[in-house]
Amino acid sequence: MYIFKTTSEKNVKGKVKKVFNDIKKTRKITKIPNFWKSLAHNPDNLERTWNSLKQIMKKGALDPVTKELIYVAVSITNNCEYCIRSHTAAAKKKGATDKMIKEMIEVAGLANQNNKLVAGYQVEVDKIYK
Amino acid sequence: MYIFKTTSEKNVKGKVKKVFNDIKKTRKITKIPNFWKSLAHNPDNLERTWNSLKQIMKKGALDPVTKELIYVAVSITNNCEYCIRSHTAAAKKKGATDKMIKEMIEVAGLANQNNKLVAGYQVEVDKIYK
Amino acid sequence: MYIFKTTSEKNVKGKVKKVFNDIKKTRKITKIPNFWKSLAHNPDNLERTWNSLKQIMKKGALDPVTKELIYVAVSITNNCEYCIRSHTAAAKKKGATDKMIKEMIEVAGLANQNNKLVAGYQVEVDKIYK
Amino acid sequence: MYIFKTTSEKNVKGKVKKVFNDIKKTRKITKIPNFWKSLAHNPDNLERTWNSLKQIMKKGALDPVTKELIYVAVSITNNCEYCIRSHTAAAKKKGATDKMIKEMIEVAGLANQNNKLVAGYQVEVDKIYK
Amino acid sequence: MYIFKTTSEKNVKGKVKKVFNDIKKTRKITKIPNFWKSLAHNPDNLERTWNSLKQIMKKGALDPVTKELIYVAVSITNNCEYCIRSHTAAAKKKGATDKMIKEMIEVAGLANQNNKLVAGYQVEVDKIYK
Amino acid sequence: MYIFKTTSEKNVKGKVKKVFNDIKKTRKITKIPNFWKSLAHNPDNLERTWNSLKQIMKKGALDPVTKELIYVAVSITNNCEYCIRSHTAAAKKKGATDKMIKEMIEVAGLANQNNKLVAGYQVEVDKIYK
Repeated sequence: MYIFKTTSEKNVKGKVKKVFNDIKKTRKITKIPNFWKSLAHNPDNLERTWNSLKQIMKKGALDPVTKELIYVAVSITNNCEYCIRSHTAAAKKKGATDKMIKEMIEVAGLANQNNKLVAGYQVEVDKIYK
Repeated sequence: MYIFKTTSEKNVKGKVKKVFNDIKKTRKITKIPNFWKSLAHNPDNLERTWNSLKQIMKKGALDPVTKELIYVAVSITNNCEYCIRSHTAAAKKKGATDKMIKEMIEVAGLANQNNKLVAGYQVEVDKIYK
Repeated sequence: MYIFKTTSEKNVKGKVKKVFNDIKKTRKITKIPNFWKSLAHNPDNLERTWNSLKQIMKKGALDPVTKELIYVAVSITNNCEYCIRSHTAAAKKKGATDKMIKEMIEVAGLANQNNKLVAGYQVEVDKIYK
Repeated sequence: MYIFKTTSEKNVKGKVKKVFNDIKKTRKITKIPNFWKSLAHNPDNLERTWNSLKQIMKKGALDPVTKELIYVAVSITNNCEYCIRSHTAAAKKKGATDKMIKEMIEVAGLANQNNKLVAGYQVEVDKIYK
Repeated sequence: MYIFKTTSEKNVKGKVKKVFNDIKKTRKITKIPNFWKSLAHNPDNLERTWNSLKQIMKKGALDPVTKELIYVAVSITNNCEYCIRSHTAAAKKKGATDKMIKEMIEVAGLANQNNKLVAGYQVEVDKIYK
Repeated sequence: MYIFKTTSEKNVKGKVKKVFNDIKKTRKITKIPNFWKSLAHNPDNLERTWNSLKQIMKKGALDPVTKELIYVAVSITNNCEYCIRSHTAAAKKKGATDKMIKEMIEVAGLANQNNKLVAGYQVEVDKIYK
């Protein structure tokens, strides 16, 4: 269930239509995922979020697969099912192997554990890291 | 300040000494970072955590730099200063450029935002991701 | 499924009955929501939590709608589905419009992003904010 | 300490200079806060984040004070000191009274508690909220 | 630095004075900790929070030491320095040994790791746990 | 749904078979829970995680019931349904009464609230806790 009624892809116009078309073209898909249909309730936010995602997730100093894996590791830490599933799928589509995904999950698990050991012992930052 | 008194590197013996030596050798450092000195209060936990870290963070399907960046992205999400500083340093030492680190921070920021937009709109998982 | 068997509204007595009646009267509802039925497993906690909620969420320097929106923004950050759904409903009942809810979601998303950019760059607090 | 060397306000040019000038003009300040100086390491991200913040935090269906209070409540939940201090200051500057801030803190505290009681009891979403 | 000026213990009166006296008597201390002095800015919240804490943390089916350790484990997960330090001290005062505290930190670390492995693999709840 | 296809208990061999047998023997169960079947996708991680859990959760200065309750309190704070359900069941199996579980939930709720009140007021650590 949605907090707001779902935006139907068919009746959109103006800014929403333009963004939806760009999503389909960029992603080479024919159906808009629920995330973007939810954001369409607020056209300015839809446009802003899509433009940010397109710019941030594109190839730069880091390749798109690495960026997707980082995105999923954050989503795991926040326990966001939608984000974990959709971006694991995106990572695979862009070339991530199962082995890469498993290693990313392990690193995420380890970091979460050590983050809390640091808190538990209240470890002081070493001078060389300051 | 520490919750427990700091373990001095000089007086360690047995399991702790063995692990400390392995840390120095593996990392090519001469001074044990505070994190490991804190864990030394519990030698079994020190050994377990070090072995896990050594295995998980080594080159596999993902290279060590990518793993460090994933580690930092999780630490950013958990707001762990020690972890952010020490593993950003580790990432740089292993070859991460400033540009790579900045892009990782951006991806972490974006993922955190979108994780919450998904929660706010209670977006349903699309069938193709299930 | 519940961790504990659901408390049936019909058989309650004593402290639980008194609180249930107060909830129905205050909220102008005829059915006790699952949250309160769960807390009823521990009558003292039920009473304490209900009294806190009644006092904290009532009109003060902030109006009840603003308080509900703040409550939902926190629940979004914690990814608590029950809390997001029930308090979005409460916000609407008290007068929040769809536009207000969308703007709250956007602010919550932005704050979550910027909180992490601050962590990633380890931004120092400016003197004027101290 | 910063992860990257601080950007000096004096030597900036191009996109960064333009954004810095807009921040000063919009906020009626003469000194750029550390957050924006940190983001300046990545001019595209600086511009994107500033534009998003300007659009999202401006008066809409919700007034700017309410938006700042929501922003702080999220930052409290994420335990981001910089964000709590700078946006509490912003809320006050825009007209929030001490009493409003205290009530916001209380609502944030209560929501965080109840979010976890819901998790502990694994409370099912009532049909009327679906 | 505090968001609000510190409440001086000397000038308090009415509800705040009553609660401060109860804190001193119950805890057998002569100086009010900063947490309670901060809450005193909002006397109703001070009274409510103190009464809740007194009731919840007292001996019940769980002994006070166990309760303090649970409290610290949560505070570690939330990375709240004040809470970790003050409640570790409280645990020790009530009889927790260093060994107990170390084991609690380890359990907290492990749980944080496994919580995220569950998220990463999106593990389904086994029927026997439903 | 799983991110990876479920590992069937029947066809496992080598390291995975050894760990599965140890889990069954130690836990006195005949069916491997989904968590371990998911980790089996990565045999080294399975072995490491099981060995850590076995060592950390066994009787030490803290008894196994207390450790399970701490584990659940962390899982509540992270809102991990699988972990809350499976370790609440484990706690009961090891002897935790309903009353103990309810008190643990209350302490977890209280700590989460107070952690955020500390953040909201930016309470300074008292000298005696440093």
